[in-house]
Amino acid sequence: MEKKITVLPGDGIGPEVIASAVRVLQVIGKRFNHTFHLGYAAIGGAAIDQYNNPLPNETIHMCEESDAVLLGAVGGPKWDNNPTHLRPEKGLLQIRKHFDLFANLRPVKAFPSLLASSPLKREVAENVDLMIVRELTGGIYFGEPRKKTADAAVDTCVYSREEIERIVDNAFELARLRRGKLCSVDKANVLDTSRLWREIVEEKKKSYPDVQVEHNLVDSVAMKLITNPCHYDVVVTENMFGDILSDEASVITGSLGVLPSASIRGDNFGLYEPVHGSAPEIAGQGIANPAATILSVAMMLQYSFGLKEEAAEIERAVSAVFDDGYFTADLAQDGTRVLSTDEWTDKVINE
Amino acid sequence: MEKKITVLPGDGIGPEVIASAVRVLQVIGKRFNHTFHLGYAAIGGAAIDQYNNPLPNETIHMCEESDAVLLGAVGGPKWDNNPTHLRPEKGLLQIRKHFDLFANLRPVKAFPSLLASSPLKREVAENVDLMIVRELTGGIYFGEPRKKTADAAVDTCVYSREEIERIVDNAFELARLRRGKLCSVDKANVLDTSRLWREIVEEKKKSYPDVQVEHNLVDSVAMKLITNPCHYDVVVTENMFGDILSDEASVITGSLGVLPSASIRGDNFGLYEPVHGSAPEIAGQGIANPAATILSVAMMLQYSFGLKEEAAEIERAVSAVFDDGYFTADLAQDGTRVLSTDEWTDKVINE
Ligand SMILES: CC(C)[C@H](C(=O)O)[C@@H](O)C(=O)O
Ligand SMILES: CC(C)[C@H](C(=O)O)[C@@H](O)C(=O)O
Repeated sequence: MEKKITVLPGDGIGPEVIASAVRVLQVIGKRFNHTFHLGYAAIGGAAIDQYNNPLPNETIHMCEESDAVLLGAVGGPKWDNNPTHLRPEKGLLQIRKHFDLFANLRPVKAFPSLLASSPLKREVAENVDLMIVRELTGGIYFGEPRKKTADAAVDTCVYSREEIERIVDNAFELARLRRGKLCSVDKANVLDTSRLWREIVEEKKKSYPDVQVEHNLVDSVAMKLITNPCHYDVVVTENMFGDILSDEASVITGSLGVLPSASIRGDNFGLYEPVHGSAPEIAGQGIANPAATILSVAMMLQYSFGLKEEAAEIERAVSAVFDDGYFTADLAQDGTRVLSTDEWTDKVINE
Repeated sequence: MEKKITVLPGDGIGPEVIASAVRVLQVIGKRFNHTFHLGYAAIGGAAIDQYNNPLPNETIHMCEESDAVLLGAVGGPKWDNNPTHLRPEKGLLQIRKHFDLFANLRPVKAFPSLLASSPLKREVAENVDLMIVRELTGGIYFGEPRKKTADAAVDTCVYSREEIERIVDNAFELARLRRGKLCSVDKANVLDTSRLWREIVEEKKKSYPDVQVEHNLVDSVAMKLITNPCHYDVVVTENMFGDILSDEASVITGSLGVLPSASIRGDNFGLYEPVHGSAPEIAGQGIANPAATILSVAMMLQYSFGLKEEAAEIERAVSAVFDDGYFTADLAQDGTRVLSTDEWTDKVINE
């Protein structure tokens, strides 16, 4: 197989974790006889510095010619006081919208060897294996009108039937490939957009009789994700709720530093990135944890290229290195060995 | 002191926990020489059954003549399929709006004897003592236009400067009476209402030089509330974020069943209610936990009547009963004694 991938290292630790992930990708390519052509481009703060634009046209063009995009992280204090259109995260919002990447998939799965880092009791967190499916290109993030004066401000949450249908279909299909359970999250006791959302889930469920569906209010899910996270298989929700709940869910298993994500649009194209941010405070020291980016490569292989075996191989290797007691500094526990970004990546590659 | 209180028992376990709380209130009145005149009225499902209206005019009038309102809980499966204007929670939204109860205060404090019920590790939860201040009468809950057709739906999040200023002032003042730390939560990297919110907090902080302020994004707070809840003192946020974060925070200490809340408007009038819902599945069995409603009475004494000593006395008694190992069924642990609602209330009264 031959694939073109655009690589966007971004800011902070982005370039370091990307370097690791690219090494793993190349090793997998060699071993399974695939050729991955990589092109590098700028996004976020790095792109603001170079092009005065968090998502330059050059970057868009390169992504358009690619089969998938691998992103490090964006942002940092240097750009925090910029006007909105010159903020690093604007590049992220724009690339999602431009490429219509409407489905953000965020799996959260416990690694037994990381549970000591979880704020939750072991028995609460140890069997967690859930996937949050967040709508990523609609709702209050992009709705018009939006306006701010010195005396008032407005944001608008809009959803069309079509926008809801496609994300709900996506979630049903994922549930089918997993344990067949879907929790749809809304605030139907208050919001009109939620009432439409709930109606559409009710209609769609007739086409997926093999999936067991429940509706749950966002406030109640915010509780249950902590008291009983094992209850969940696939959780589907709109953009803003998904932003909050997926970050909340990311701390359950103590493995925030190792969580990958995919942002896809239904064909094979997708953008893959670690859940964690650019961690400017440790950038350049060679101590960042590359696991989340390496696992994002695994998601890319699976969702964009259909390479299940290759993806599983990466996941197995990462797990094995943890089980052998090798960690980067962020996950260090008593009696474990602390490795640098490069050393830890070597271990994964050896596996 | 002589005060008029409207009591709204509501649905499910509402009437049972209210009966307990009223007993405690009367005992405190006797002991400290206050007269509390109580009038009972209908809200929620009970009001729908009786008046075909979740917030009848009779109820509004009685509340208008009172110094404070004590509420049990509303809702239940019986009314779940009613049209929106005949849903129990509509009564709650209307009473908040009608009386302009713009500040919802939700304290979360660890009871050492309840930590075994927490999903979090003891060392993470044990020193938690925070207060969420949620804006309760604005934002996307009430903004216009809101609309739903078969093909699309819209909700609107609006905030005026004045609405933000008053809640922010409220939170600063609370912080000042506590540990002097305020975390303002928004999504200023995406929303215009959040940018106005942040601006106003920045302006206001000049008037409260003794309070240390930080701004934090809602997704990041959703994580940190679980990984490091002790970081927080007062947390202030808008209506929808507050709904989600306050429910999330309520599970930290294992004491969801014992959390009180106050909804106030700046003068002394306020509505007090437990955080938990109407729990229809256990209604009528005499096993409900009345602690949250009893502690809501303590908040009423403190915030509406300025009776600090009386409030502290109730809090002390509740704590002492837990420390003695007496619990209602919801909190039962190995080796503790399980009491009925009435028996547990007797213990508090004896204290
Ligand atoms: C940076 C920000 C705009 C973004 C979002 O809110 O979507 C981030 O929090 C995320 O979840 O990817
Ligand atoms: C019942 C519902 C409308 C209400 C809200 O969202 O405000 C409830 O969740 C609460 O927090 O009091």
